[in-house]
This record gives sequence, C-alpha cells and structure tokens, in this order.
Amino acid sequence: VTGLGLVSLVGAGPGHPDHLTQKAVRRLREADLVLYDALVDPSVLALAGRAEWVDVGKRAGRLQTSQTAIQQLLIEAGSKGRRVVRLKGGDPFVFGRGGEEALALQDAGIPFEVVPGVSSAIAAPALAGIPVTHRGVASAFVVVTTADKAVSTAVIDALPPGLVTVVAMMSMGSRASLAAQLLDRGWPAHTPAALLLGAATPRQWTWRGALSALALCEPPATSADAPGTIVVGAVAALDLSFVQGELSPIAVASSTARE
Amino acid sequence: VTGLGLVSLVGAGPGHPDHLTQKAVRRLREADLVLYDALVDPSVLALAGRAEWVDVGKRAGRLQTSQTAIQQLLIEAGSKGRRVVRLKGGDPFVFGRGGEEALALQDAGIPFEVVPGVSSAIAAPALAGIPVTHRGVASAFVVVTTADKAVSTAVIDALPPGLVTVVAMMSMGSRASLAAQLLDRGWPAHTPAALLLGAATPRQWTWRGALSALALCEPPATSADAPGTIVVGAVAALDLSFVQGELSPIAVASSTARE
Repeated sequence: VTGLGLVSLVGAGPGHPDHLTQKAVRRLREADLVLYDALVDPSVLALAGRAEWVDVGKRAGRLQTSQTAIQQLLIEAGSKGRRVVRLKGGDPFVFGRGGEEALALQDAGIPFEVVPGVSSAIAAPALAGIPVTHRGVASAFVVVTTADKAVSTAVIDALPPGLVTVVAMMSMGSRASLAAQLLDRGWPAHTPAALLLGAATPRQWTWRGALSALALCEPPATSADAPGTIVVGAVAALDLSFVQGELSPIAVASSTARE
Repeated sequence: VTGLGLVSLVGAGPGHPDHLTQKAVRRLREADLVLYDALVDPSVLALAGRAEWVDVGKRAGRLQTSQTAIQQLLIEAGSKGRRVVRLKGGDPFVFGRGGEEALALQDAGIPFEVVPGVSSAIAAPALAGIPVTHRGVASAFVVVTTADKAVSTAVIDALPPGLVTVVAMMSMGSRASLAAQLLDRGWPAHTPAALLLGAATPRQWTWRGALSALALCEPPATSADAPGTIVVGAVAALDLSFVQGELSPIAVASSTARE
C-alpha cells in the first residue's frame, strides 16, 4: 500500500462493452478519474461507476487536450493518490500513444499498469467475418497506419504482393492512396479488400470488394470522421459470419445492430 | 429462437481470467460444452459453470483430437441444440485455426459466432512492458509464426532491418534459426529482442537481450513446451512496467506472480 495512486492504461476494445476485459471493467468501477479518447464508444462510458469522466480525445484531427497536457493530468492525479483510468479504444500499445504515457509516468515515479485490450487490428476484421490469418491463405499479417505515411509506404514497397494480410488502421481517409500504392507495387486489381467502420457498435459498416474498387467505396456520411480499418489480402474474401446479435433463450439485451 | 445450438469460437486471452472479455465469461457460464486447447491457462478453466469440459489440445506437438474430429464434435453438438464454447488461447483468428472451424460450421449450417480475445501477439509484450508500436520508434508491426517457415522466412527476407517490430508467435523452439535469419538479413547484432513465456500466468518468464544472444537464452526447464512469443526491434529495449500485481486497497485476490 502506498500513498500514491495508480494510473491504469486500459484498452477499451473495439466498441461494445462486451469486448472489455474483466480487469478493464474492474478498473473502471474502482476509478476516481477516467480520461478517455474519441475512439472509445459511448456505450463503454455508460459503465460509469463513481468516477469523474474527462474527454481528452481528438475532434476533426485536433487534440482537445495536448499529449503533454494529458500526461501532466495523469501524473498530477496519480501523485494525489487517485485511481485513474486512461481509457483508449482498442489496445493502449497499438497506435494508442500508451507507450509515451507509460514512459512519462515511469519517469515521474507514479505507479502505473497496462491493461491490454482487444485490438481493432484483429477484432474489427473478425467481427466482420474476416480472420487475419487462415491456414493455407495467410499465415502472417502486418499492421500499419497511413498516419505514418513514410513507414506504411516502405512496408508496402518491401513486401511481395499477397505474402501477408495487410491491416491498415485509422486509414479510411487514405483509402485511395493506400489502394494506389498497393496496385503500383503489383498487388492484383482483384485482390480482396475490406473497409470496416464502427466495429462492435450500432454504426458498424462493412464494405467488401476488389482492391481496385477500394478508392471508390462510399462510407455513410455520418462516418466521415471514423478511423476505419482496412484489410487487404485473400482473407478478406472470407465471410465467416452467421449469428446476428444474441440468440434469445439465454440472451442479454443488446442495443447493437450486430455484435 | 431456433432448435439449433450456438457454437462460440472464443478467445481466452493470454492467460489470467482478468484478460477474458465480458462476453467470453458470459458464454462460458452459459455453455453446455467447452472444448479447450492446451494454450488455455488452467486458471481460466476454473470459471467452470455448468458445462462439460473437454481437452482437445496439443501435447508435445501432437493433437490429442484431430482438427477434423474437433470440427465434427462442434457440428454434432451444435446440431443437437447445445451451447458450445470452443475456447482458444489468445484470439481465435490469430493462428488459432478458428477460421477453419468457422468455415466448417458455416458449411454445416450451424449457428456460430466469433468472440475476439486479447491476442498474445500484442499482450504478451505489453505485459512485459514492451509496446509493439511506439511513436518515433516503431509505427508498424508484423506478426509471423515460425511454424510456417516458408512465410516467416519470406517476410524477414523482404523487410528492411528495423523497419517494423517483428512478433514471432509459437516460436520459442525456433529462436536460434529465427535469430540467424534476422542477422543474415542484416539486422544489427545489438538489436533489442525479448522472449516471453507464460504471459499473465504464474509462470510468466521474460528474457531480454541483444538479437545476437537470443539463440543462447535458457528458458526454465518447466517451460520447454511453452509456445513463446519473440519480439525483435527497438521497442524491445523499452521496459514500461511498474506495478507488480494488484495494489492492496481495492485489490482482488490474484494468484499470479505478476499480472
């Protein structure tokens, strides 16, 4: 037991609270303060508990609160003995800047922990019926974000077409340039592709088609700001989905169009 | 409501039940029958409920029950109206053969669903303080398994040294050949590397060192059969860990050496 608090960097998973881990739920219920991102679904916020909730997410590409200010808030709250949850969509260490926050807390001597979440890199495709690996089809996958154009371009240039499944996160806005890069690199025009928005939320929307058509797909206007996950590779032709929502006999009420 | 059952392909996460999702726990509690893998930690099995539990995992590289027999068991149980959980370590669609089982169920007309889990590809490093992405250090990662040597070798050959974090799953037994391939490809000998065993279990064991020393690291004899996750890249030098186990005030009993 220490006079210091505890800052938990918690992954909220892809959307619906069903995909929160047991530890994430416990930390939310114990928290005094929750700092959350725009990528966290409102249904997760409804778990409330006794905490004060503060939105520090991005809006239209701009941070409401700067990364430095977020880190300062975490350090201050932790040093006052508060139980803090830093809640991030997906997993804190997959493009979540969780590493920077952990480093700042470590440097400041504030106790912290990481609570891994279900990453949208894997779960957004899965919830649309697409396995990122599949025996005989793809036995490796690469996760990039077009937000780092230099690296995503270098990865695409390096990998032979079709060798691995490509998962591009927060890439809806760059779908045309991503498709163009892959086609330039020699990926066949008919390579299966998918664009996944709002996985595990009532706004879940899936587009499937050929890589050559990815640039032309038209997401709903209400999803214009969605981060989006793009999957390119033979696995995107699979559609391993069957049950829509909960079955009745032992069902728990669910407001999602599809879990 | 249907006379048919429901087969849930459920990811159990990296080990401790803390990392199960809420939906995974609900499905385990509702289940009549649970078929589980060797990669599922015994602490998860303690969640029991009213189900019959059947071990269909591998032992010493051999399936106790063939993949075809597992699929047949799932189809039979589903067609008898049973609620079945097919429980897999990590996530069902990351080298879990979940895709094959889903296809077999789809072909047989048995209702099924996928319940994504926390993948060890991301969580095993995270629980050892290693983020697979980190701003300015690595903004992409690739997940391979040396169980598919042709593909993992082709991926390593293709990617420029240091461009992305390499995560190699179920690769402990191939650590020497993996290290040799990376060194041959021009990854510097001092590239940080880590070998992670038993993440989120009392047997959690972490080795960190230079890529050139990976072949020589000596895991505990009791972990000789562990699948193991290997991380290679600059992120493996990070050690973002602080809190060991639960803090006391609001603590829940935990038997793990480290969560």
